[in-house]
Amino acid sequence: MERNIKLLIRYDGTRYFGWEHQPDTPMTIQGKLEQVLARMLSLSEGEIPLITGAGRTDAGVHARAMVANVHADTEMTEEEILAYCNRYLPDDIGIDRVVFASPRFHARYNAVGKLYCYSLWCGAKKPVFERKYLTVLDGVPDVPAMREAAACLIGTHDFKSFCANPRMKKSTVRTVDRIEIKEQGEIIRLYFHGNGFLQNMVRILTGTLLEVGFGRMEPAQVMRILEAGDRKMAGPTAPPEGLCLMKVEY
Amino acid sequence: MERNIKLLIRYDGTRYFGWEHQPDTPMTIQGKLEQVLARMLSLSEGEIPLITGAGRTDAGVHARAMVANVHADTEMTEEEILAYCNRYLPDDIGIDRVVFASPRFHARYNAVGKLYCYSLWCGAKKPVFERKYLTVLDGVPDVPAMREAAACLIGTHDFKSFCANPRMKKSTVRTVDRIEIKEQGEIIRLYFHGNGFLQNMVRILTGTLLEVGFGRMEPAQVMRILEAGDRKMAGPTAPPEGLCLMKVEY
Repeated sequence: MERNIKLLIRYDGTRYFGWEHQPDTPMTIQGKLEQVLARMLSLSEGEIPLITGAGRTDAGVHARAMVANVHADTEMTEEEILAYCNRYLPDDIGIDRVVFASPRFHARYNAVGKLYCYSLWCGAKKPVFERKYLTVLDGVPDVPAMREAAACLIGTHDFKSFCANPRMKKSTVRTVDRIEIKEQGEIIRLYFHGNGFLQNMVRILTGTLLEVGFGRMEPAQVMRILEAGDRKMAGPTAPPEGLCLMKVEY
Repeated sequence: MERNIKLLIRYDGTRYFGWEHQPDTPMTIQGKLEQVLARMLSLSEGEIPLITGAGRTDAGVHARAMVANVHADTEMTEEEILAYCNRYLPDDIGIDRVVFASPRFHARYNAVGKLYCYSLWCGAKKPVFERKYLTVLDGVPDVPAMREAAACLIGTHDFKSFCANPRMKKSTVRTVDRIEIKEQGEIIRLYFHGNGFLQNMVRILTGTLLEVGFGRMEPAQVMRILEAGDRKMAGPTAPPEGLCLMKVEY
């Protein structure tokens, strides 16, 4: 039967070169899924199932709830597909749910909101067990100042200054409707919610907010960075390991 | 100055062949500490600092609070030693505390109690982010039955049946004064507290309690295993990744 299989995927991105399929390495999340699905669907050699992800995560970035869909001809049930994928995927990629979606469902085009979380460690001890999912800071940032700067970013803006791709042809206008900064003991979590994010945008936003947090930039400067439309004015790109895609909304 | 340096150590044992120094590989926790301390103390080549651990953890086993001591001649302060070690140790080994102990303090001989935790996963989803610190079960065990069996183990007994070394020359009598089994959502944690544990003892106890949990053994059978003094009567050795040394008491 022709099915549009919707997958809810969780992965530890540490070992991978990001979400997106790359012809020269099997070490991408999409690539691993393709391998397993090709085998499950008994595709002929060289045939690759077309998996659409809600977005592309960078190398080293994690996801607790990536969404993807793939059209396939199969007699398997949702439960059978779930069990098959989890059995054959490596243990750093897990499928949490499989649903047969309507034929028109498209994981990327239909996404209306995304939630990311960036986790920072500012404790005195080494975060030995959490080290792959946190970015370690050298000192404790000024969180109220970071919140002040974050407030300037809320709304619909041209986020060109916060985009890694300087030759981005499509619109760089996005709506960020929520940035929450939570202190949980020695961990600081930055939650970013919006209708979409540009390449490296969450990491550049985090890097810029940390410039403010460590007093190297005034909170109000963030306004001027937005207006300038110049990547060089923003802060550095925060490392990938602290970032996790938490939710995709439809 | 002659110091007896006491270290509180946290480590992710995944990459290591256990705590104990091995001449043919640098991948032991003790070996890594020796390397860093030898450099810190400017020892001559081939000289190895004698580090005494409270016990030996197996390959793949973790620790949140291993205790060790090492006698050394140094002018450094406790804070300087802590910072030096954390800087040069790999990021899966962390020192949480450094204290100058009395010259007679011995991390192994003076230990009077130890607490271990064995963590089991019995959820439907794959524990992608916690996978290195849990043992995944295929089904949900009968926890009340496991508690009934655990109660038989409390007290001072000859634990020969639960010791990996059949030619153990020293006494195999130990006192286990507490086994608590806690259910935290999809994780089951087994806490073992006692005055000392034999080689693989916590893992064999866990493997045996799981035999009870999955109905392959009656709870009362545990009594007979203790009495038999025969390793072959006990359950299998549970895998190392679920085990963590939580505390050493003096």
